Amino acid sequence: MSDEKKARTEIQSLGEFGLIERLTKTFRPNQKSTLKAVGDDAAVLEYGDNCLVVTTDMFVEGIHFDLMYSPLKHLGYKSIAANVSDVCAMNAVPRQVTVSIAISNRFSVEALEELYDGIKAACSHYKVDLVGGDTTSSNKGLIISVTAIGETEKSSVTFRSGAKVGDLICCTGDLGAAYLGLQILEREKQIYLANPGVQPDLGERNHLVEKILKPEARTDMVAAFRKNKLIPTSMIDISDGLASEIHHICSQSNVGAYIEESGVPIHPDAQMQAIDFGLDPITCALSGGEDYELLFTIDPEDVDKVKFLPDIYIMGEVVSKEEGIRLHTKGGNIHPITSIGWEHFQPTPNSDQNPN
Amino acid sequence: MSDEKKARTEIQSLGEFGLIERLTKTFRPNQKSTLKAVGDDAAVLEYGDNCLVVTTDMFVEGIHFDLMYSPLKHLGYKSIAANVSDVCAMNAVPRQVTVSIAISNRFSVEALEELYDGIKAACSHYKVDLVGGDTTSSNKGLIISVTAIGETEKSSVTFRSGAKVGDLICCTGDLGAAYLGLQILEREKQIYLANPGVQPDLGERNHLVEKILKPEARTDMVAAFRKNKLIPTSMIDISDGLASEIHHICSQSNVGAYIEESGVPIHPDAQMQAIDFGLDPITCALSGGEDYELLFTIDPEDVDKVKFLPDIYIMGEVVSKEEGIRLHTKGGNIHPITSIGWEHFQPTPNSDQNPN
Repeated sequence: MSDEKKARTEIQSLGEFGLIERLTKTFRPNQKSTLKAVGDDAAVLEYGDNCLVVTTDMFVEGIHFDLMYSPLKHLGYKSIAANVSDVCAMNAVPRQVTVSIAISNRFSVEALEELYDGIKAACSHYKVDLVGGDTTSSNKGLIISVTAIGETEKSSVTFRSGAKVGDLICCTGDLGAAYLGLQILEREKQIYLANPGVQPDLGERNHLVEKILKPEARTDMVAAFRKNKLIPTSMIDISDGLASEIHHICSQSNVGAYIEESGVPIHPDAQMQAIDFGLDPITCALSGGEDYELLFTIDPEDVDKVKFLPDIYIMGEVVSKEEGIRLHTKGGNIHPITSIGWEHFQPTPNSDQNPN
Repeated sequence: MSDEKKARTEIQSLGEFGLIERLTKTFRPNQKSTLKAVGDDAAVLEYGDNCLVVTTDMFVEGIHFDLMYSPLKHLGYKSIAANVSDVCAMNAVPRQVTVSIAISNRFSVEALEELYDGIKAACSHYKVDLVGGDTTSSNKGLIISVTAIGETEKSSVTFRSGAKVGDLICCTGDLGAAYLGLQILEREKQIYLANPGVQPDLGERNHLVEKILKPEARTDMVAAFRKNKLIPTSMIDISDGLASEIHHICSQSNVGAYIEESGVPIHPDAQMQAIDFGLDPITCALSGGEDYELLFTIDPEDVDKVKFLPDIYIMGEVVSKEEGIRLHTKGGNIHPITSIGWEHFQPTPNSDQNPN
C-alpha cells in the first residue's frame, strides 16, 4: 500500500442535503422539548401548550444575492420573508426573528440603514418582532443570518413526512417566476457591464422581477387554512424548485407523486418570458428556485375546503412509492421528475483554494 | 451650498454597540410573547409557564478566529459554548441550538466533520440539542452562525438592568486568561511564519491557551445559583472584557460601580504571563475579552449564599451613578474604568474597499 494520505472529500460531491445528512446524522436530540430536530423546514419545540417552530437561513453576497441588482432594502425584506416562509411551511404563525450581519468596511452606516429599512418593513408586514442579532465585520462582502420563531398548536404542525397515498398535491401562487425574474436581471447586468450608459430594460413583466427581488411568504395561506379548519397532511415551502421539494415530501413520506403539467400554475408573464429566453416554462417551474410558495398535500375529503380558496392549485396526487415521482405532460407523455434543486456548492471563480 | 452628496458614515465611527443602537432603535416589539427584545445577552420570550431566552452570535474567519492556531474541533466547541454563555447570563438552562455555516471550497467534508465533532462534544457537554441550521458556500473563508435557546422560570430571569446601589459585584472563574492565551498563540504564529521548522512553544501555561481555544460556559454556576436559591439582581457574560461589561450593567441599571483591584480574580499563570509580556495583569482582566465568565450583582442579604460557593469572587459594590465606575488599585489609587471592549470594526488590511 502507498503511504496513507488523509482522504479529502469535496463538498460538491455530496451536495447541500448530502452534506447536512453527513454532518448531523450522529446527533441525537435529548431534550424532551425537542419534538423535531434537523430535517424539515423548521425544528419543532414543545414549550407550554403550543409548539414553537425554529428555522434559520444564511444569505451570502455573491452566492445568494448580487448587490448590482438587489437593492439593500429589498434584500432585507427578502431575508425575513424567506425565513417566515419556512415558518409557514410548518403551518405556524411567525412571532420573532433574530438578524445577524457580517459586513466589510465598504458598507456605510447609511447602506445598512437601507437594509434594516427592508427588515423593518418585513417585520411590520408579517407582524414579527426583531428580538436580537449580532453585528460583526467580515473580510469580504455582506452575510446575513436570520433565525425565525413561529408558534402553532401541536395538532396543527405540518411535517414533510405526512403525505398519504391518495392525497391531493396542491400549491399556492405560481411557479417559475422568480427564476425568470433572475434571468432578466442577469441579462440586464451583462448589458450594463458591456455598456454602462444603457438603462436597464426590465420590460413590463414586473411580476417576475418582483418575485425574485421581493418575494412574499404565504402567511395569508396559513391564515386561510386556519379559517377553513384545514390541516394539510404535509407541507414544504418552494425555495429550491418544485422538483426538489416534491422529492423531499415523497422521500420523507415514503410515497410517490403524479403531477399533471396542466395543473402546475405558471403566470402568463412567466410563460411568455420563458419562451422569449428559449426555455420550457414547466422546466422553469420544476427547477427554478426562490418562489417561496407552499407545496402541500391534503386528504381528498378536504377538497371542498380548498376548492373555493383563491390562489390554490391542485396539480396532482400522491401515489405509492413504487410508482415513483412522475409528470404527465400536456402532450400526453409521462416523465420521471428528477430532483434538481439549487446546488450552492459549485466551485466559483473567486473562491479561495487553499487546501484544508 | 455645494451640490448635495449623500452622507457616508463609516461603521467604525459608531462602534458595534452604537451601530446596533442606530439600526434597531425604531423597531418596536408587538408580540405579547416578546418580554425583552434587543439589548441584553439574549431576548426573553414568554411561551407557556416559562420564559425562553434566545441569543445568536456570528463567528467570521480572520475576524474572530485564525485557523492557523484554532483547531476546527475547538472552534466548533467554542461556537456553541459562547452562545450557551449568553443563555447562562440570563440565568437560564440551555436547551437547543441551530448552527449555520458558510464555507469556501477550500474546506473538505473531513474538515467540516472535525468542526461538527466539536459542536457535538459541546452539545453533549451542555446537554443541548442541535435542531437545525443552514449550510451554504461562501466566497471566502468560514462563517459560523449559532442561535441558542434556553429556558427558565419567569421569576429567575436576570437582566443587565437589575443592579441596585449596595449590591455586591461578583464574578466567576478568573479574568484575562483568554487574552493572554491569544497573545501566546499570536507570538508562536509569528515565530512559525518566520521559521516554519520551529515547533510552537506554548509553555506550561495551558490554562491560558485552553481559555482562548476551548472556553467553557458557566452552566455549572447557573445550576449552583439554582441549588442555593440565589437569583442575581443583574448578570452579563464577560465576552468583551470586564470593563466593557461593567459599563453595560451600570448603564442599563442606572448605577455606578466601585471595584477593588485585589478582588478581581486573575489566575497565577495569567499574572506571570502578563509580566513576561510587559503587560499589567489588571489591564488584561479589564480589557481582554472572551473569558466567558459571569459578571453579576447580588443583594447583600444573599452574601451567605455565595460565600461558600467555589469559584465565585466578590470584587466590588454597586454605587450611585454619580460616583461613576471606578477601580481601587492595590496601590491605593482610584481610577475611572473606561469602557474598552473588543471593537470588531477596525479596518483590516484585506477588507474590500469598494464604496457602497
